[in-house]
Amino acid sequence: MPLTLTTLRNMPEIHPGDNLVELILEAMDADHVPVEDGDILVLAQKIVSKAEGRLVNLVDVEAGDQALQVAQVAQKDPRLVELILQESREVLRMRPGVIIVEHRNGFVCANAGIDHSNVRGEGKDPQLWYLLLPKDADQSAREFRAEVWRLIGVNVGVLIIDSHGRAWRNGTVGITIGLAGVPGIVDMRGMQDMYGYRLQNTLIAAADELAGAASLMMGQADEKSPVVIVKGFPYPLKESSSLKELIRSKDQDLFR
Amino acid sequence: MPLTLTTLRNMPEIHPGDNLVELILEAMDADHVPVEDGDILVLAQKIVSKAEGRLVNLVDVEAGDQALQVAQVAQKDPRLVELILQESREVLRMRPGVIIVEHRNGFVCANAGIDHSNVRGEGKDPQLWYLLLPKDADQSAREFRAEVWRLIGVNVGVLIIDSHGRAWRNGTVGITIGLAGVPGIVDMRGMQDMYGYRLQNTLIAAADELAGAASLMMGQADEKSPVVIVKGFPYPLKESSSLKELIRSKDQDLFR
Repeated sequence: MPLTLTTLRNMPEIHPGDNLVELILEAMDADHVPVEDGDILVLAQKIVSKAEGRLVNLVDVEAGDQALQVAQVAQKDPRLVELILQESREVLRMRPGVIIVEHRNGFVCANAGIDHSNVRGEGKDPQLWYLLLPKDADQSAREFRAEVWRLIGVNVGVLIIDSHGRAWRNGTVGITIGLAGVPGIVDMRGMQDMYGYRLQNTLIAAADELAGAASLMMGQADEKSPVVIVKGFPYPLKESSSLKELIRSKDQDLFR
Repeated sequence: MPLTLTTLRNMPEIHPGDNLVELILEAMDADHVPVEDGDILVLAQKIVSKAEGRLVNLVDVEAGDQALQVAQVAQKDPRLVELILQESREVLRMRPGVIIVEHRNGFVCANAGIDHSNVRGEGKDPQLWYLLLPKDADQSAREFRAEVWRLIGVNVGVLIIDSHGRAWRNGTVGITIGLAGVPGIVDMRGMQDMYGYRLQNTLIAAADELAGAASLMMGQADEKSPVVIVKGFPYPLKESSSLKELIRSKDQDLFR
């Protein structure tokens, strides 16, 4: 069975408090995309964050001492830096324009994933709105999955993804920041290859491999396709999956 | 148009000197998978390396002084370490079991991508065969693409991929090590978002995003699907693409 990734058109603009599941199921109806057991719904972080009301206006932020110091090195608005630090456990590196942090939720990314594109709110400073990542994207994914089950009785997997930069390579790739029902890692250790050797070191980051292609289909310049429906994922769904599977522990990381 | 990734069944075992293009076109015929202009053929590194005869038996390798030293720290066969060093420009990190290097071709990876699974040769030490990466996977991809054009007059893109580990996250993901006709990076800088803001820092590593999903479909424990045919790639093919697009220059890398 081939792997197919279909972008969902007809998605409305998302506002705080929206029921994402209902809106997505309506859009799938309008697009004539059926959802079936075993499908995976991939959601751009941005619509989850917007539905959760994670918008902040910089006029409401006061920069502390650490933010003022970091802002000088990173050459960023100290109020934005304050938000970045509040969303992070640790600063790993910085240089003008970028602060690499460990996000509260455990993953390493630039600027705590705080986004400015396709974000605008009301009020006297409409250009100063920023969007934080979901509070706990794993939890958001679990709730989304449970709500799909409650509404239509279909067993889907859910990935919430963002675009992250990487060490050593140019460009961003889609990456998992929250998941439910989808295995984060597929463990092939102990299996035998075609000559009977035991495979070693073979942990496949299946959720991230899928996140990349879903991100590719969503594009970046607009929000026309913040949802991708995946059919043909080559592994069974897994009840108890968690982002933790995908996060390398600090003591195992040669590049912290 | 959805993105579709179809694995190619009916691929024979590959041997040094095989004409990969002919074998793949035959397998596509047998699988009734048509190839059309704009499709992308994704090849597992392993079949390219085997066709290029990149097999080495450790009995034929003599470890030099540096390899002997590194082998003590990395706790690996010094002859294997010798191969890793010969294939590399620089050692970035090491710990027991793994040596992170900059490969001759520019990318950073573990153990210079030298592989032992699904590799076996003839002779008195059939268990000591290792497979090096293609000499120049970009060149291999270009030649493959030209040969497809010569044989059937179809304009395809070609990716040669491998599975690499990553900083900060567990598990391997498929990653591009050579490409032809496919944009490595799609540059969205200067484009406007839905509110008219200019997008910044938006270089999409499109080839790597596709490599992940292709790798997901190939699986790891056997070689039944070392070829994936992609339809619906959302960007136009690009004549002059190169792996260089995807490699972060050393002075721009905060994690070297």
